[in-house]
Amino acid sequence: VSEPGAEASSRITTPTREDAEVEFNRIVAFSDGVFAIAITLLVLTLEVPGGADDLGQELRDRTDEFLAYGLSFAVLGKLWLSHHRFYGSLGRFDGTLLALNLLYLAFVALVPFTSDLLGNYSGESVAVIAYALNLAAVSLVFTISVRYASGHDLVREWAQAHVKHFAGWSDFFVAGVFLISIPVALVSPTAATLVWLGIFLVGRRLADAMTGDRRPAGGRRG
Amino acid sequence: VSEPGAEASSRITTPTREDAEVEFNRIVAFSDGVFAIAITLLVLTLEVPGGADDLGQELRDRTDEFLAYGLSFAVLGKLWLSHHRFYGSLGRFDGTLLALNLLYLAFVALVPFTSDLLGNYSGESVAVIAYALNLAAVSLVFTISVRYASGHDLVREWAQAHVKHFAGWSDFFVAGVFLISIPVALVSPTAATLVWLGIFLVGRRLADAMTGDRRPAGGRRG
Amino acid sequence: VSEPGAEASSRITTPTREDAEVEFNRIVAFSDGVFAIAITLLVLTLEVPGGADDLGQELRDRTDEFLAYGLSFAVLGKLWLSHHRFYGSLGRFDGTLLALNLLYLAFVALVPFTSDLLGNYSGESVAVIAYALNLAAVSLVFTISVRYASGHDLVREWAQAHVKHFAGWSDFFVAGVFLISIPVALVSPTAATLVWLGIFLVGRRLADAMTGDRRPAGGRRG
Amino acid sequence: VSEPGAEASSRITTPTREDAEVEFNRIVAFSDGVFAIAITLLVLTLEVPGGADDLGQELRDRTDEFLAYGLSFAVLGKLWLSHHRFYGSLGRFDGTLLALNLLYLAFVALVPFTSDLLGNYSGESVAVIAYALNLAAVSLVFTISVRYASGHDLVREWAQAHVKHFAGWSDFFVAGVFLISIPVALVSPTAATLVWLGIFLVGRRLADAMTGDRRPAGGRRG
Repeated sequence: VSEPGAEASSRITTPTREDAEVEFNRIVAFSDGVFAIAITLLVLTLEVPGGADDLGQELRDRTDEFLAYGLSFAVLGKLWLSHHRFYGSLGRFDGTLLALNLLYLAFVALVPFTSDLLGNYSGESVAVIAYALNLAAVSLVFTISVRYASGHDLVREWAQAHVKHFAGWSDFFVAGVFLISIPVALVSPTAATLVWLGIFLVGRRLADAMTGDRRPAGGRRG
Repeated sequence: VSEPGAEASSRITTPTREDAEVEFNRIVAFSDGVFAIAITLLVLTLEVPGGADDLGQELRDRTDEFLAYGLSFAVLGKLWLSHHRFYGSLGRFDGTLLALNLLYLAFVALVPFTSDLLGNYSGESVAVIAYALNLAAVSLVFTISVRYASGHDLVREWAQAHVKHFAGWSDFFVAGVFLISIPVALVSPTAATLVWLGIFLVGRRLADAMTGDRRPAGGRRG
Repeated sequence: VSEPGAEASSRITTPTREDAEVEFNRIVAFSDGVFAIAITLLVLTLEVPGGADDLGQELRDRTDEFLAYGLSFAVLGKLWLSHHRFYGSLGRFDGTLLALNLLYLAFVALVPFTSDLLGNYSGESVAVIAYALNLAAVSLVFTISVRYASGHDLVREWAQAHVKHFAGWSDFFVAGVFLISIPVALVSPTAATLVWLGIFLVGRRLADAMTGDRRPAGGRRG
Repeated sequence: VSEPGAEASSRITTPTREDAEVEFNRIVAFSDGVFAIAITLLVLTLEVPGGADDLGQELRDRTDEFLAYGLSFAVLGKLWLSHHRFYGSLGRFDGTLLALNLLYLAFVALVPFTSDLLGNYSGESVAVIAYALNLAAVSLVFTISVRYASGHDLVREWAQAHVKHFAGWSDFFVAGVFLISIPVALVSPTAATLVWLGIFLVGRRLADAMTGDRRPAGGRRG
């Protein structure tokens, strides 16, 4: 305490607890913002037909675009819920986790593009593979983030056992299914999209059952 | 307390009250973000004429696009106020309500598309019906959310009687009017849009009168 | 206290002070969101030339688009600062102010469109008039909001004298200059834009001097 | 205390500490919003090919667009982290810093445009120079902001020594490298982009080493 230089340097590297809380919340708010913008930009993948004679027919021809919109909205919504739950369980972060989060967001923000591809070329393997690769990348970076946080003591005490489940089977499962759908898409794009549907309808529940995940989906406020 | 396993699992499922508050606020902030983005993206439905000789005439020809912009801005603004008031009255949420909220937001984020359709094809039944279906879907999912929250004890004590009114007549009224406007649009698209105007100018006030709603529209801060 | 019905109805209409604070902050955050999105969407008014032979020349031909981007960024930034300061001075809000705020935001969110018009048709009176009308509408609705809040006791005690200045000369001044620029634009679009520049460089300072405004532009945090 | 006029005027110019905190946080949140929107709008620079016969080939032809997306996402992410850290270190702000921040954000919000240019004309000097000028402008305005804040006692006590390092070598370094890459781009656009890569891979570390910067990248919450 008597040496002013040492004191100054400790001031530099030790912001108060409150400041760190603000910094943490800004990172979470920034991520939420990217999710909210990406999910709302999906609407720009729906094109208004120009000078259509039979508007009803033109819209029916675009059924795949509407399906891609619905699928991607659900996918981004689910991803956001996972992200939201995971970051809610963190007590600390570091530079590596920050970089992983940015990489994750770069793939999340790409979804409106691959979703647009899918809506316009739903019958083509290339579009289906691009979408699957995008979501496999998102899932993989997320799983790596969870594992990194779990291994570097960044998770809060009350959430540690929970995150360990979370970082287990179920997440590699999601990335795995997307990767498996790629060779399937080479044979049949439609079959590949059915594989994805499996993730939504059966997969998660199955994975949760396998890992005995019983986390509550909701919350209460005071 | 003596059994460590039980303690750990209680830590997993019982985040502190403060953490749940943060989680709740993030969901509300995310929804607000989607509303703010969707309402601001409406401006992209207004096209700048390319290489116009008579710019004034070109803009006058687009009167319907400006009207659709104004209508949709008012509609999304009103929807946001209702959403905002309803979520302000909640004390808890659960997984089902979260899923309903995402479905609700998926229809809200679609409004810039159906509004664009309406602005470009205002004289065609198909465009008017698409817009009416979109808003009927929004209203319906909202009413279901309110009823679900009311029936599952998610509403705060002070707001319960209020939400019961809210979940009553007036909301089915909005969805109902949009559904009724669909057969009207088959005969006359203009008549259908006049039916909507009725919702704004008369309907709500009427519905409020019928349900005896006297909630204050404003608020105070300390 | 003995009659339960009376107690329940008071619970309905009297949210706690903290709840109202949350509601107020959501309205302010929503408005900030619309501003942030509108100001960032300005970049979409800049078109990347398709397949240009001489890219440098193509970009130089678009000088007016860059000027419109810079002007509108500055305009929206200034508007946001005023909005931000005004809402910071409010202690309460009501339904009318809420509606005025939505109307205000509808004109704010329109700026990327009129700015795009201005960048593409900077030499044409119609584009200059459209821009001037847009900003005159924004200024007018803002002045009405300030006067309404001031007249209905919505302003906090410490800010009342300040808002009275604010609601005085200087704001009608801004709306007035935009309205005056409209007949000027009929003669010379360039002269009209110079009139606007006057608002930025001289006007505000002059208006502040006339009203003796000495409010501090900055702030401190604890 | 006895003179009412003096008391009133002190109320006008002295909002409570809590109010100033809210005002400060709104400015930071607004900046974060612009960053989140700009980074997510980058996806709009990726065009979905219309009616492609060989979609795979079309996508491979757009490799440069994907590279520009990745580069700009990383650049905006890094800029946001610096902005975030710098504003976290401020205890006060004033009108000049506010204006500098708006100017800074105007160049940040321009990145999706120059990035789009770069993706479409990656082999052309003009596009590379436009991108370099944009980022040099961002870096320069940021350095000026840091120096201004440092020189006008706006930085919190615990962060002063840190910001002094920050405002030193390393930031002029970034702006300098972008400026140096401009003449390089006249000879070889590819060489110029390699110069930028140097900033990411070597530069910062080198600059940090030169200035002895040891700030922690992470944070903790309570």
